[in-house]
Amino acid sequence: MQTVATTSDSADTVDLGPASGLSCRECGERFALGPIFACEACFGPLEVAYDLPSGDPEELRKRIESGPDNIWRYAPLLPVPADVAGKPNLNPGFTQLVPADNLARELGVTGGLWVKDDSGNPTHSFKDRVVAQAIEAARAFGFTTLSCSSTGNLAGAVGAAAARAGFRSCVFIPHDLEQGKVVMAAVYGGELVGIEGNYDDVNRFCSELIGDPAGEGWGFVNVNLRPYYAEGSKTLAYEICEQLGWRLPDQIVIPIASGSQLTKIDKGLQELIKLGLVEDRPYRIFGAQAEGCSPVSAAFKAGHDVVRPQKPDTIAKSLAIGNPADGPYVLDICRRTGGAVEDVTDAEIVDAIKLLARTEGIFTETAGGTTLGVAKKLIEAGVIDPALTTVVVNTGDGLKTLDAVAPTTGMSAVIRPNLDSFREAGLA
Amino acid sequence: MQTVATTSDSADTVDLGPASGLSCRECGERFALGPIFACEACFGPLEVAYDLPSGDPEELRKRIESGPDNIWRYAPLLPVPADVAGKPNLNPGFTQLVPADNLARELGVTGGLWVKDDSGNPTHSFKDRVVAQAIEAARAFGFTTLSCSSTGNLAGAVGAAAARAGFRSCVFIPHDLEQGKVVMAAVYGGELVGIEGNYDDVNRFCSELIGDPAGEGWGFVNVNLRPYYAEGSKTLAYEICEQLGWRLPDQIVIPIASGSQLTKIDKGLQELIKLGLVEDRPYRIFGAQAEGCSPVSAAFKAGHDVVRPQKPDTIAKSLAIGNPADGPYVLDICRRTGGAVEDVTDAEIVDAIKLLARTEGIFTETAGGTTLGVAKKLIEAGVIDPALTTVVVNTGDGLKTLDAVAPTTGMSAVIRPNLDSFREAGLA
Ligand SMILES: [Zn+2]
Ligand SMILES: [Zn+2]
Repeated sequence: MQTVATTSDSADTVDLGPASGLSCRECGERFALGPIFACEACFGPLEVAYDLPSGDPEELRKRIESGPDNIWRYAPLLPVPADVAGKPNLNPGFTQLVPADNLARELGVTGGLWVKDDSGNPTHSFKDRVVAQAIEAARAFGFTTLSCSSTGNLAGAVGAAAARAGFRSCVFIPHDLEQGKVVMAAVYGGELVGIEGNYDDVNRFCSELIGDPAGEGWGFVNVNLRPYYAEGSKTLAYEICEQLGWRLPDQIVIPIASGSQLTKIDKGLQELIKLGLVEDRPYRIFGAQAEGCSPVSAAFKAGHDVVRPQKPDTIAKSLAIGNPADGPYVLDICRRTGGAVEDVTDAEIVDAIKLLARTEGIFTETAGGTTLGVAKKLIEAGVIDPALTTVVVNTGDGLKTLDAVAPTTGMSAVIRPNLDSFREAGLA
Repeated sequence: MQTVATTSDSADTVDLGPASGLSCRECGERFALGPIFACEACFGPLEVAYDLPSGDPEELRKRIESGPDNIWRYAPLLPVPADVAGKPNLNPGFTQLVPADNLARELGVTGGLWVKDDSGNPTHSFKDRVVAQAIEAARAFGFTTLSCSSTGNLAGAVGAAAARAGFRSCVFIPHDLEQGKVVMAAVYGGELVGIEGNYDDVNRFCSELIGDPAGEGWGFVNVNLRPYYAEGSKTLAYEICEQLGWRLPDQIVIPIASGSQLTKIDKGLQELIKLGLVEDRPYRIFGAQAEGCSPVSAAFKAGHDVVRPQKPDTIAKSLAIGNPADGPYVLDICRRTGGAVEDVTDAEIVDAIKLLARTEGIFTETAGGTTLGVAKKLIEAGVIDPALTTVVVNTGDGLKTLDAVAPTTGMSAVIRPNLDSFREAGLA
């Protein structure tokens, strides 16, 4: 299977809507649409280029608003065919943008605070957005098996989406994953294969498989479909602005794993500005990491342009990528917009999970705790301006990382079933 | 605190929108709106009576369609003030009605099969719908503490909703609940009190507390706020019909715990017919129970009008109510509409969970497995007509009942990280 692009690829039969090709983020070289992810000239990462709709922004806004209540309302801005909403897909997105007034009071935010709550997606994380794009690319390229390497969450998202969309799935995970995560990934009935080794070994094996005849017809959502997959995160930017009344927020706080989500949210905001869907005003992007895996935060603070890899050790396992591919782009965006990258300890992550639950009734996973923890830290440090509008992105669900809060979360009291015992416990 | 109604109650200051009072389901006696749940005359259960909107159905449809993407779009039909959408609330509802084409093929359904997927609600079960109503009633009655007895799911829904809406919460559970459920309920920061005893003891204690000065100002969502709480299930009926294009389905399959959800879905369908929002056509309602707790199914099959209590023993714990309060009403509705009540074994429940995951990428809890299992059984028996439109209600999320599928769900293979090992495993 071909993994590096050549300019002779033909895309005559590929309909991915406004997607006009792939372009290299490093050297700008253009390639036809295909299941490729690295530039032939410089081995830089490829990303989707578009012929975006032109014309009256008000008409485009109306067209979007009359679309389905999911990511496909933005089909004119995504690498998917125009009739995508009619195809079997999990249809994620258009999750709640929660006005977090209680949390704002507690943090002293006066300019408006919102939580974009992606735990409302079908498998309860933002992964459904990106996998949905990969599914449509896989259809366009004639793949019949969907695959990925995963430490858990992505495996479930791929398994579920493949089941709905009618693909075979074969997903690779480290063999020693916790049973709960194995069940969540395996229940959709695809092949779930444990690899004797760690996550790096799983990744290396997948790369080998892509280059082998055994991998023919396989779409790896986060490898050979990665350029399409990654575009799914743009929908977070579209939804946040639409839900704010077609308005840019002043400040957005976003978790960093590979850094792809942050860079694509920035890309989405830039597109909305170019299309005239929102007023062009300055916005600031803030990146959040766990102290136990903070290569981008460390580089930001040291003033470096490149990221020195780290060996992850944090409860925020879905953010534990020690050598984040998009790290340099994240640094550039956070600096260019006047934002920052910060990290918090595992204890601060747990505190932030509980803070969000207590104030807004949203139970987030450790990644969400990281993001809110960093938001809190930056507000207290005066880096995030409390008088401006701020959006915190919650990427997933606390049910998936119960262990993080279990040791410090329990019953207030145990009593006998009578009023005397109730009064004795001081609960009356 | 008053628990039985008198007709002298004044509702002058209570604004619950179209709710005009409470009426006794048994004797029809009318009462003013208040935190009461049993008829003074006959001790029958009270339910909300309405002055429903009159006028052009097309206008009402448009008004609903232009409302928010949650249950408050139906505010004109619910016991809530007109400005409810502006108040802090979890805003559940308008969950996906999934066209289950893969499942339909597998079951031989040709008339159209949909899954109403309530795992998309904020705390991932239909409980958010009913708790949201109780919150608004609690506000109207001036309560400051929200409470309930629970075996887990409801505790989390109440804790989360109370946090968002700014109420204190104090929730009662059996002291020996599994740790995962305790964490899910406790993380929202309200009081979570373990009662030394079983669920019946918890309930008895709550009844005692309602009658005591210590319970002054407390709204028990499933006791003294029950008439309002229960109305939340009507929204399932509204959404199903609106999402079908303002059309009644021919057949609906609904799980039975207390039976309240099934009776309220029927009430909702009847209201849509009366208001002219859907064409008046026959529909059939089917109730689903687990064999290990099947008092209503047993009564249906025996031709009885009343339900003989059972001691529950099933993995479908959220349906394990041995003496369902609305059992007789459920029997009446299922017989009147030409439906049925059926039950399935724990093994069939697990099979149905996996069937739904494998065909549609939806991971449901044991209650949803029960409902789909019964649907499958009734289709195979020719009781549900495969040529008619059918909706199966999925009330919750598989992440909450992982234990049900864990013993039989795991990896397909464990291999070494190389292609030879992959080929040996027969996966190529
Ligand atoms: Zn290049
Ligand atoms: Zn009565």
